Amino acid sequence: MPVQVVDINCDMGEAFGQWRLGTTDDAELIPYISSASIAAGFHAGDPNLMDATVRLAAHHGVGVGVHPGYRDLQGFGRRKIGGSGDEIVNDMVYQVGALREFARRHGTNLQHVKPHGALYMELAVNENLSRSFIQAMRTIAPNSYVFCMDVSATYRVAIEAGHPVVREFYADRDYDHTGSIVFARHVNRLDATAIAQKCVRACRDGVVRTVEGEDIPISFESICFHSDTPNSLELARAIRSGLIEAGIRIAPVSEVYDQLVRA
Amino acid sequence: MPVQVVDINCDMGEAFGQWRLGTTDDAELIPYISSASIAAGFHAGDPNLMDATVRLAAHHGVGVGVHPGYRDLQGFGRRKIGGSGDEIVNDMVYQVGALREFARRHGTNLQHVKPHGALYMELAVNENLSRSFIQAMRTIAPNSYVFCMDVSATYRVAIEAGHPVVREFYADRDYDHTGSIVFARHVNRLDATAIAQKCVRACRDGVVRTVEGEDIPISFESICFHSDTPNSLELARAIRSGLIEAGIRIAPVSEVYDQLVRA
Amino acid sequence: MPVQVVDINCDMGEAFGQWRLGTTDDAELIPYISSASIAAGFHAGDPNLMDATVRLAAHHGVGVGVHPGYRDLQGFGRRKIGGSGDEIVNDMVYQVGALREFARRHGTNLQHVKPHGALYMELAVNENLSRSFIQAMRTIAPNSYVFCMDVSATYRVAIEAGHPVVREFYADRDYDHTGSIVFARHVNRLDATAIAQKCVRACRDGVVRTVEGEDIPISFESICFHSDTPNSLELARAIRSGLIEAGIRIAPVSEVYDQLVRA
Amino acid sequence: MPVQVVDINCDMGEAFGQWRLGTTDDAELIPYISSASIAAGFHAGDPNLMDATVRLAAHHGVGVGVHPGYRDLQGFGRRKIGGSGDEIVNDMVYQVGALREFARRHGTNLQHVKPHGALYMELAVNENLSRSFIQAMRTIAPNSYVFCMDVSATYRVAIEAGHPVVREFYADRDYDHTGSIVFARHVNRLDATAIAQKCVRACRDGVVRTVEGEDIPISFESICFHSDTPNSLELARAIRSGLIEAGIRIAPVSEVYDQLVRA
Repeated sequence: MPVQVVDINCDMGEAFGQWRLGTTDDAELIPYISSASIAAGFHAGDPNLMDATVRLAAHHGVGVGVHPGYRDLQGFGRRKIGGSGDEIVNDMVYQVGALREFARRHGTNLQHVKPHGALYMELAVNENLSRSFIQAMRTIAPNSYVFCMDVSATYRVAIEAGHPVVREFYADRDYDHTGSIVFARHVNRLDATAIAQKCVRACRDGVVRTVEGEDIPISFESICFHSDTPNSLELARAIRSGLIEAGIRIAPVSEVYDQLVRA
Repeated sequence: MPVQVVDINCDMGEAFGQWRLGTTDDAELIPYISSASIAAGFHAGDPNLMDATVRLAAHHGVGVGVHPGYRDLQGFGRRKIGGSGDEIVNDMVYQVGALREFARRHGTNLQHVKPHGALYMELAVNENLSRSFIQAMRTIAPNSYVFCMDVSATYRVAIEAGHPVVREFYADRDYDHTGSIVFARHVNRLDATAIAQKCVRACRDGVVRTVEGEDIPISFESICFHSDTPNSLELARAIRSGLIEAGIRIAPVSEVYDQLVRA
Repeated sequence: MPVQVVDINCDMGEAFGQWRLGTTDDAELIPYISSASIAAGFHAGDPNLMDATVRLAAHHGVGVGVHPGYRDLQGFGRRKIGGSGDEIVNDMVYQVGALREFARRHGTNLQHVKPHGALYMELAVNENLSRSFIQAMRTIAPNSYVFCMDVSATYRVAIEAGHPVVREFYADRDYDHTGSIVFARHVNRLDATAIAQKCVRACRDGVVRTVEGEDIPISFESICFHSDTPNSLELARAIRSGLIEAGIRIAPVSEVYDQLVRA
Repeated sequence: MPVQVVDINCDMGEAFGQWRLGTTDDAELIPYISSASIAAGFHAGDPNLMDATVRLAAHHGVGVGVHPGYRDLQGFGRRKIGGSGDEIVNDMVYQVGALREFARRHGTNLQHVKPHGALYMELAVNENLSRSFIQAMRTIAPNSYVFCMDVSATYRVAIEAGHPVVREFYADRDYDHTGSIVFARHVNRLDATAIAQKCVRACRDGVVRTVEGEDIPISFESICFHSDTPNSLELARAIRSGLIEAGIRIAPVSEVYDQLVRA
């Protein structure tokens, strides 16, 4: 069944202090998305930036989510840290709360939780860790969507627990034959037209071409791209206009989810 | 008018990772207090410890507060950092949210906010900073008490804004003639009997002897002592039993506050 | 006596992890300078960046210096931290050693030590702190130049102690009537021609116009500009070519210093 | 061939700011050891503590070594961080330099480099990482011993490279049948008599009993125990007196190494 309505999410607030990643401002990207995953201080983000980014998202009517990561500013959360499940989940609870306080300050709610980088990938393959995470979410944020890959322990565990969950399609990452994205610490400039077509094809035909060269089926409710991909603004424009031209509507995740649950 | 019912608060969770301050466990101190001010990761405290400490306080029916400090693990938040008011308040909002999430996880609320160390002292003398802080509190936590000194900009500003505020009497700190405590980065072992008598006298007679040697009037709703004062457990026992023997009741801060507001 | 030979220094390596300050690469600036002050991890800089920056400077024959700052990544070392003198100096010794190890790795020496930001300004007015710093330098790096302002406790104390010391002229900062620069947490784009003329005038006539509008005498051996001033590359080019056209030679700090000592 | 002369090393300075690990002071342990491995700020240790600990070791004539770890204060360097080899080695170079500067300040040299915790264990099994580390050591500290396990990539690579290397026997850790220690994030109180006998037996008979219950041969030049093992002071006394009673001399690592090389 083709995707007719989809959310677009992007990570935001991934700077620190006076430093920035690349040259794209979040303020330029925000008109193109419907959900923002905002860094909360462990892999990126500081309280000043979190305040400004939540305000920006709230002002644009974009869903506010938290983007918790490993405690690793130097490695930008893209290096695995071998802590216990309880430790990692406590770090996530901390970041959820910190970001949620800024949401409250700016009159909005915590729409979703999307783990970042190496933590996202670890949760995808580590069922015990996903269980601990989802169990914490059931207690602290039962109505906040968890964002994850279709092919992941996180998705399976959330579904079992009855927790609202949204699957992502990665516009600017490669897929392998297992349906997982190929994790990258650094990403180069990408061809915007090709990326837009990849998204439209995933929506219309439900498939993506893998690095091994064959098509695999893919299911999702949200399209993700990264603000630190060098030409992210160009990608954002191309994805959005490509989808609209193909008759696919971009909508808040709650609306996409409701259609999904009804279906 | 003598104090007949009083709250006892103590800072808690002021360790980090595998390290501890002194040899007193929070679990030993908690039976003697009615409110806990829990470190939230900037001057002390990590997510694992915050989780354990909030659980401990909730289990004992002790009021859960957050103890936000300057971002200075090395200096334990006892060194002033010269940031702008917005920066400092954003750091506080962040810590409030992080701690509040653990309170939610353990089925309790954020009873109070008590700034820590050099930040507490700075707020006491910096009216602009106190205004920014109280304004943020009005938005994010209008029902959570702010803890401060009687003689402080924080108290004046909170009263003006109609924000619930609790004044503290410092059992284990010296007072000067202005009614302010004498700030100390390190504190030595104290005489428990003298400390208990100082508390009883403050409750019964409403006065405290200053470092200059004269008595000054003092008003408060909560008695504070520090868990890192070397013999804090002995002090806790002496203060509690001293108060009870003097016919002064120890009660949750909400109850003390209600009596105050009615009076 | 006009300045006929001068050093040009710039702070470098002031990024962190994947983040950058502005859009100017150190590799673009390095041909225009003779001394680099390299961040050492406390206000900016991480080991990977320190390694790359020291290698870059060594490759270009640029003098390698360390740029120790307050421990404050979030505030970029531009906020004062109220520690004791011993604490601050220990933090500086630590950073000196860390940077010097990369100098050793790349076959060069530690030419100089230039404190950063709020620490530089604090040393300029705090004679006790300057004494502690210079005393540590006498022990650990008796041959490494200390960079400071002419009008500063640091300069007076270094001269008294017989420690090699270099005074800076700030191309991209304003001066007040005391001869001190006006400290700024953020700096905007500057007029390159005006900046170059300001430098030439300072060299040739020994004066600088203050923010109050009058000329004051100024003495220095090195001209400083900041890599995070938005158009720093343009400034670097203008300063260098302006000096050369005016017949002023740019030389390593050791050569400038030798001329000074002989004079 | 029985061990007749041996070094005793202990990790030191593993506190941070005002926090401590356990209740044993380094000053109590130092009379029992001949080499100190001093934390350098990444897993533990701050500049004030590094200064005090190096001074203490120098005063007691104990060899000063650096104990570099993963950048993980919260996890005490006992969690693996998945960085690249270059990143990890740059982190080590940084810590080597920072500690060495305090050694210079207190008139002593950098006797040795002993990686800490999860980094030590990773180097033991990761030959590429050991090669990068030893290659850096050849450049920056060709005369400083590397401490490692007999059964480790670190040892093999150091020997091949001709770098001075010292093997350790772990008094307070269990061994498995491969000859590796069983890594532990937390260790309980141990039987001092049994530990002393284990050390004497390892020296005299060259064997250790594994967790699987059989004896394996073991070669070493230094005996290690950890200051954070709860009864570390008791262990230190028992090990030292046990060795002396058994006629085994405790000597600086340079002397032990010279005997080894001559043999």
